[in-house]
Amino acid sequence: MDDACGDLALDMAALGRAARAGFDALRLASSATRTAAIAAMAQAVRGHAAAILDANAADLEAAARLAPAMQDRLRLTPERLEGVAQSLESVSALPDPVGQETARWTRPNGLDIARVRTPIGVIGMIYEARPNVTADAAALCIRSGNAVILRGGSESLRSSRTIHAALVEGLKHAGLPASAVQIVPTADRAAVGAMLSGLDGAIDLVIPRGGRSLVERVQAEARVPVLGHLEGLCHLYIHPSADPEMARALVLNAKMRRVSVCGALETLLVDVAAAGQLPGIAAALTAAGCALRGDRRALSLVPDMTPASEADWRTEYLAPILSVRIVDGLEAATDHIAAYGSGHTDGIVAQDAAAVEAFLARVDSAIVLANASTQFADGGEFGFGAEIGISTARLHARGPVGAEQLTTFKYVVRGTGQTRP
Amino acid sequence: MDDACGDLALDMAALGRAARAGFDALRLASSATRTAAIAAMAQAVRGHAAAILDANAADLEAAARLAPAMQDRLRLTPERLEGVAQSLESVSALPDPVGQETARWTRPNGLDIARVRTPIGVIGMIYEARPNVTADAAALCIRSGNAVILRGGSESLRSSRTIHAALVEGLKHAGLPASAVQIVPTADRAAVGAMLSGLDGAIDLVIPRGGRSLVERVQAEARVPVLGHLEGLCHLYIHPSADPEMARALVLNAKMRRVSVCGALETLLVDVAAAGQLPGIAAALTAAGCALRGDRRALSLVPDMTPASEADWRTEYLAPILSVRIVDGLEAATDHIAAYGSGHTDGIVAQDAAAVEAFLARVDSAIVLANASTQFADGGEFGFGAEIGISTARLHARGPVGAEQLTTFKYVVRGTGQTRP
Repeated sequence: MDDACGDLALDMAALGRAARAGFDALRLASSATRTAAIAAMAQAVRGHAAAILDANAADLEAAARLAPAMQDRLRLTPERLEGVAQSLESVSALPDPVGQETARWTRPNGLDIARVRTPIGVIGMIYEARPNVTADAAALCIRSGNAVILRGGSESLRSSRTIHAALVEGLKHAGLPASAVQIVPTADRAAVGAMLSGLDGAIDLVIPRGGRSLVERVQAEARVPVLGHLEGLCHLYIHPSADPEMARALVLNAKMRRVSVCGALETLLVDVAAAGQLPGIAAALTAAGCALRGDRRALSLVPDMTPASEADWRTEYLAPILSVRIVDGLEAATDHIAAYGSGHTDGIVAQDAAAVEAFLARVDSAIVLANASTQFADGGEFGFGAEIGISTARLHARGPVGAEQLTTFKYVVRGTGQTRP
Repeated sequence: MDDACGDLALDMAALGRAARAGFDALRLASSATRTAAIAAMAQAVRGHAAAILDANAADLEAAARLAPAMQDRLRLTPERLEGVAQSLESVSALPDPVGQETARWTRPNGLDIARVRTPIGVIGMIYEARPNVTADAAALCIRSGNAVILRGGSESLRSSRTIHAALVEGLKHAGLPASAVQIVPTADRAAVGAMLSGLDGAIDLVIPRGGRSLVERVQAEARVPVLGHLEGLCHLYIHPSADPEMARALVLNAKMRRVSVCGALETLLVDVAAAGQLPGIAAALTAAGCALRGDRRALSLVPDMTPASEADWRTEYLAPILSVRIVDGLEAATDHIAAYGSGHTDGIVAQDAAAVEAFLARVDSAIVLANASTQFADGGEFGFGAEIGISTARLHARGPVGAEQLTTFKYVVRGTGQTRP
């Protein structure tokens, strides 16, 4: 085992050094070169379709014990693979953030100061067993001038390696080095620890995407900057002024449109003065196949709910299950969200404008919304084009992360010989 | 010793919990309340002047073994203390970043999306033995709605505690809790480790400001997001097209205006085709009291230099010492900066516009400049008002960090019942 760990450490360090070389090439490459590389990746994915689908079939065969929802995320079909290629093409067509001036001003002494977007550097991407993310993440990194080291869930390793081979073909087609997009070639979980340690300074940013076990690992082990894409424990609060019809439609959509996305509703908070709306909402959810877990007061209104435990308020179900709590007013609702939420997406349903603004001000989540479904937590729905996911970090980028959010900036100062007095 | 460590851990955790309560009060306080608190801090500093100057005299007496430059940073005079009060007043008058909308747009489905600046949360500030930073950092945090835990160099503890008492008086005057601005009441270095661990999730961001030993400690121990304000190993590169008069004036100003600031020049890179300019520059520096350390080729042109060692290229002198290297062209210069620089501030002196743009593109530092002194690396000189310092981090905020850079943002989405198709 010691030998195996030693070898892995060695391999990961080599990956890191190669990524730095890849970034050196990438950050000086033109926008057109990077655009051409991503477009060529799309063509290569189509060209490699048979090999990718074969590898995916092998991944699925080995993953027969996985939950159905996870098998579904892992599965590629010819249609889904064409979707991957089209997604690459759409990223190649996105505006290039690198080199954009976001501000420029002249000082009284004549110094001309510009703030210019630049790539971040080498990004370590840790994600679930979803083969399509391999392509999306690589494309967004190349669009924003970053080199990337990809580490997807081990169940998708065969699929991801064949997709990666196609991505490298695209890079080479455009004259970029293969080291700009690398994949961790092993399912060994120690690779995640190595990435969280930063690979001897080779990694500038780790983007972890996943659930609670990854959260805990990141908190314990990360030695580098992290842009967390972690749980979405999303809430809706029904205010007494809520329109009952709207409240029912929003809860149903937020919970049931897709239960496996991070913007799916997990806990419903109903104001005690709006509790009369709960039976109707509960009936609609039950009819749609959703199981309900309620606190004592909710159970007194809808007796066929299961009693909720303390753990329920902390659980991202990603399943047709909803926890329901009756709360004594807006502040009790925002206190619950502060205590149990994950800072992802939380909303209010209310017609009272003062209540809406109070909720939007009090709740400190990446996305706060009023009278809209939490499932709008999505880069595409925000108008950002493709996205890596929804950041639950507090710094650098919160909410949907697209190519622009994968850049940093530098100040460029042009003078004519100014010295400082 | 075990008992002492146990007590410290307990005290630091209590500080963290209090800071979270302080932040809860602060983030919902009005802009006017925070403005009034900072203005009242200025008055309280004036009111406590005698006690602060007494404490500072005691700090200085105990610090007699410190280097003169460090004693000077530690020293307060009635004039300097009035400067501290005036600096607080200027921060109270700065525009409030909290609540600013930096973008707002409407989606085709009618969703109204705004990106709004919000405070970061609880900031842990670790800095040198400079009493004035205690006031400046607290004021910038309150201006931006953040609670702060201050931990200055132990040599300044008496001064900082009396200044802190004045700051708390200002908070209370405006009706804000004392827990919004706390100071670590001990010189125990374990407090820094506790802050870097995040105090059980109480700290959202640590801002370390200091030299190499702090850099290494942060890298080894930080478990929370860090906005590093670390070394400034700044370079100027003299291109063959440089105007010799301008080059001499810029080098002299960048090195000698103030040798103890992070934007001071530490290494001069002279193009081999501009080497004829070196003797004149060296003579001007020597006349100004600067010691020179050169590589072999520099020594052949200016024989009275000391030979430079490999360590010199990695040293932030903060003293009247300059290392000098002859380089074979612009790429060799930017390669040297990439290998040895700290990503703070680096510049070129050149009349050739293509060389200027190539340098500005190739060098990936927080501030890159052309034909200007590196000592312009300063929030005031950029027009930002007061500053915490110059960030050498790559994410969230690079370069000068003022009140605006101490905020994050959230997305506020206002709908009329939209569900996601």
